Amino acid sequence: MAVVTEFINLSTQGDTDVIDITPQISEKLRSLNIKNGIVTINVCGSTAAVTTCEYESGLIQDIKEIFEKFIPQGKRYHHDDTWHDGNGHAHLRSSLVGTSLTVPFKNKELILGTWQQIIFIDFDNRRRQRKIALQFLGE
Amino acid sequence: MAVVTEFINLSTQGDTDVIDITPQISEKLRSLNIKNGIVTINVCGSTAAVTTCEYESGLIQDIKEIFEKFIPQGKRYHHDDTWHDGNGHAHLRSSLVGTSLTVPFKNKELILGTWQQIIFIDFDNRRRQRKIALQFLGE
Amino acid sequence: MAVVTEFINLSTQGDTDVIDITPQISEKLRSLNIKNGIVTINVCGSTAAVTTCEYESGLIQDIKEIFEKFIPQGKRYHHDDTWHDGNGHAHLRSSLVGTSLTVPFKNKELILGTWQQIIFIDFDNRRRQRKIALQFLGE
Repeated sequence: MAVVTEFINLSTQGDTDVIDITPQISEKLRSLNIKNGIVTINVCGSTAAVTTCEYESGLIQDIKEIFEKFIPQGKRYHHDDTWHDGNGHAHLRSSLVGTSLTVPFKNKELILGTWQQIIFIDFDNRRRQRKIALQFLGE
Repeated sequence: MAVVTEFINLSTQGDTDVIDITPQISEKLRSLNIKNGIVTINVCGSTAAVTTCEYESGLIQDIKEIFEKFIPQGKRYHHDDTWHDGNGHAHLRSSLVGTSLTVPFKNKELILGTWQQIIFIDFDNRRRQRKIALQFLGE
Repeated sequence: MAVVTEFINLSTQGDTDVIDITPQISEKLRSLNIKNGIVTINVCGSTAAVTTCEYESGLIQDIKEIFEKFIPQGKRYHHDDTWHDGNGHAHLRSSLVGTSLTVPFKNKELILGTWQQIIFIDFDNRRRQRKIALQFLGE
């Protein structure tokens, strides 16, 4: 059994930018000497999230709209009284969706549904350089 | 340390069908030659989710109602413009709740609260045959 | 590769009490003979949750307010018809946010963002004594 730590670096647009990170994770997995196990995918930050969806343009638009309905960007949040950077909504969305996802793999293939991708959502209100940690455990 | 991949197959009613999958997971665990570790439970699909709750009929009704309030089935979603299958709400609910859950075990017993069960929620708008991946890591 | 089970005990105020548990987890990690791996953090109970946030007082107030907006305490839930303990809202919030979080570590340091802490949220409507399971897997 081995533990391998890898990182993905991303440039995002912010504003609920939804990015399919499945290809980068699969590529890292292929490069390792591990066949079966799990990968834990963690956002290093508190204004973004990781989850899964069917990655198609209609649904991505729906994701943007549903978060704007639930936790609007324009509303005043107490967090903004602390830092005045206008991203209170991004923090709340991140805590709600979550910043960690664990996906199993077998014979070097991620176990996902046919129409299911791993997505990174950047809720922050500006462009960001992001680092995502991948912890592989397996044999 | 060993890695073992198992699958659970489920017939669901769709329409936010909430199913207690704790017994199937415990049964798989008992059949394995692993005592201590974790099991990662993953929905293979993008219109269902996995989480925990106290599995009792009142709360299950509350779960159905809260999702209908948050992300109603009847509303028009952009996802339906792509596939016309009327399940945009199911995709959004799945991404929000999440499709992966990790639960520890010790001496072949899942570590859960007394009133806490592992639930699979099928948000799709029709009956489905579902596959849930269980990745056991332990010793 | 080793598996080590630890527990954290907490006294909470209930009513969406948000507690930074990062120090306790880091302390447990330092005391173990494991350098690299993952820790799975699980709430033993169905009226609390675990996630991450930037732990500062403004945002903590925002978290309390957003859950009161989404799933108000005062509303009548079917769960209360079963147990009459007035905490239906707490169960729903717990299932939505989630009761499990997995965080990687390397060289005995948790991999988190600079402004990111691991939080336990007690949604129950009264003070509670809580037990949180930490399952460490690593080498």
